[in-house]
Amino acid sequence: MDDPQPPKQPSKLGERALIREFARRIGPLSTTVGFGDDCAPLADNLVWTTDMLMDGVDFQLDRHDWEQVGYKSLAVSVSDCAAMGAVPVAALIAVALSNATPQERALALMDGALRCATAFGFSITGGDTNSWNNPAVIATTVAARLPNHAHPLLRSGAQPGDTICVTGPIGGSLLGRHLTPQPRVREALALRDAGPPSAAIDISDGLVIDLARICEASRCGARLDAPHIDAALHADAHRRATQTNNTPRHHGLYDGEDFELILTIPPNRLSACQAATNLLPIGQITDAPGIRLRNELAERELEIRGWEHLTDS
Amino acid sequence: MDDPQPPKQPSKLGERALIREFARRIGPLSTTVGFGDDCAPLADNLVWTTDMLMDGVDFQLDRHDWEQVGYKSLAVSVSDCAAMGAVPVAALIAVALSNATPQERALALMDGALRCATAFGFSITGGDTNSWNNPAVIATTVAARLPNHAHPLLRSGAQPGDTICVTGPIGGSLLGRHLTPQPRVREALALRDAGPPSAAIDISDGLVIDLARICEASRCGARLDAPHIDAALHADAHRRATQTNNTPRHHGLYDGEDFELILTIPPNRLSACQAATNLLPIGQITDAPGIRLRNELAERELEIRGWEHLTDS
Repeated sequence: MDDPQPPKQPSKLGERALIREFARRIGPLSTTVGFGDDCAPLADNLVWTTDMLMDGVDFQLDRHDWEQVGYKSLAVSVSDCAAMGAVPVAALIAVALSNATPQERALALMDGALRCATAFGFSITGGDTNSWNNPAVIATTVAARLPNHAHPLLRSGAQPGDTICVTGPIGGSLLGRHLTPQPRVREALALRDAGPPSAAIDISDGLVIDLARICEASRCGARLDAPHIDAALHADAHRRATQTNNTPRHHGLYDGEDFELILTIPPNRLSACQAATNLLPIGQITDAPGIRLRNELAERELEIRGWEHLTDS
Repeated sequence: MDDPQPPKQPSKLGERALIREFARRIGPLSTTVGFGDDCAPLADNLVWTTDMLMDGVDFQLDRHDWEQVGYKSLAVSVSDCAAMGAVPVAALIAVALSNATPQERALALMDGALRCATAFGFSITGGDTNSWNNPAVIATTVAARLPNHAHPLLRSGAQPGDTICVTGPIGGSLLGRHLTPQPRVREALALRDAGPPSAAIDISDGLVIDLARICEASRCGARLDAPHIDAALHADAHRRATQTNNTPRHHGLYDGEDFELILTIPPNRLSACQAATNLLPIGQITDAPGIRLRNELAERELEIRGWEHLTDS
């Protein structure tokens, strides 16, 4: 199966730098959530998030099922809500479709989005439809509620000694799972009530780079345990490794679009969180910066990379 | 100057049909606002709207100023808020930029969006940045508040006998005004307090087609007065007519992207509304369906067309 993503390269001044520069220009936000978290504050106990997905980058309409693409387009935003511990309440969908798109395919896209909304109990309340002579683009916006006026789960709360967990097996999503994400909204709510975790993010760009975002926001580092990473690998990570020159573990560390949550959990809340939902522990938050991988023999620094748009070209 | 829009054609089963079919599939909404208004309901006294703009369709990055394009991208959504009588409170911006885009141009786009947000007193709270090998796409979402829990201005309240007004001169926006829209938020609030108008919409696709949307939602028709249309023409409509085979009036009737509001105002509120802000009366709402143009000698039916995406090709 072809890889819909271009070769991944380390990016010094890519998307993160652009977001940082933009955040600098608009000045410090008066709230605790904003650029750099999965959702932004909106009002009272509402947060919101937007995602843009493009044909040929995030999906391939010439060979993927249009209904699944519609589902995925909305599910990636729902996953951002899950990472904040928020419950989606409404969505908007804007599309630019190729002029050659048959109407039944446009409707299949929307049916897929509707399936996602129904599965997670919210409404699609509006949108914007456009056509042009280029590949399709889908932009979704989801607003979500923080139940009982709870604080959102942020990236910035991790502390040295916290256990790093994921909510499900990882790696190899490109074999098909990337089209059928199961956003962990229910799990996030259960964890928030049982814990809460000290930090959370969803795996959209890859375990290492998304964990690095927690570490950057929390001013700490992380040590991943190789045997635990191996135990957390999805069967797809092994299947994918037979198609590439990489190890299954590599796919677990660097593949994007798993849409599992990465959580950091303080020691005194770990057993309660583990009782609340299935968690796979994979390492520990450390004082020392950087992400390291430890096996029985040694510890080595991991390159922090993954799927990052807007490389410095 | 080149026309960035492809030739306009009547569309029987285009965007409106697609939206209608989608609205049918998601079932009747439990609220009075939704698909078919400029914003959709979100929560309590919040509404929201999304717009997607594409390079080569809504702007041309090879010759337009990037900062202006950024401004426009957000202003079109602000204009939708104005049409509801709502005050923007926050925005999200998602972009897909060509891989070849220099970072300073990406920042110019964002600076333009920020200029719009600052001008209208709201924050850009987050976004999504992406790159690909195709023309740029910008999707904006704006949430807006209905002050004092007022009812939103809708398309569906027009009544026969209401006067049709616009908030400013129309036509010829492609000469440059389409990049510098001045959303009528302040005017809409003043009118809401003085009136309110019975229906409102902003001119994004053209006077006739946008007025037809009010008529469709309100189950009525409209009669435009040719002398009043001529009196409401922008100087750009006359300049534009010297470049085309069309009359200035044609450009007033069919040009898109003026971003003035079309309002329908009941007789007993007209003088109060006219005292509240500058209004140009252009016709009357009628029982008879369709949009007609009346001059001193005769009355003729206008073709209802304008800028509609997703034509049935």
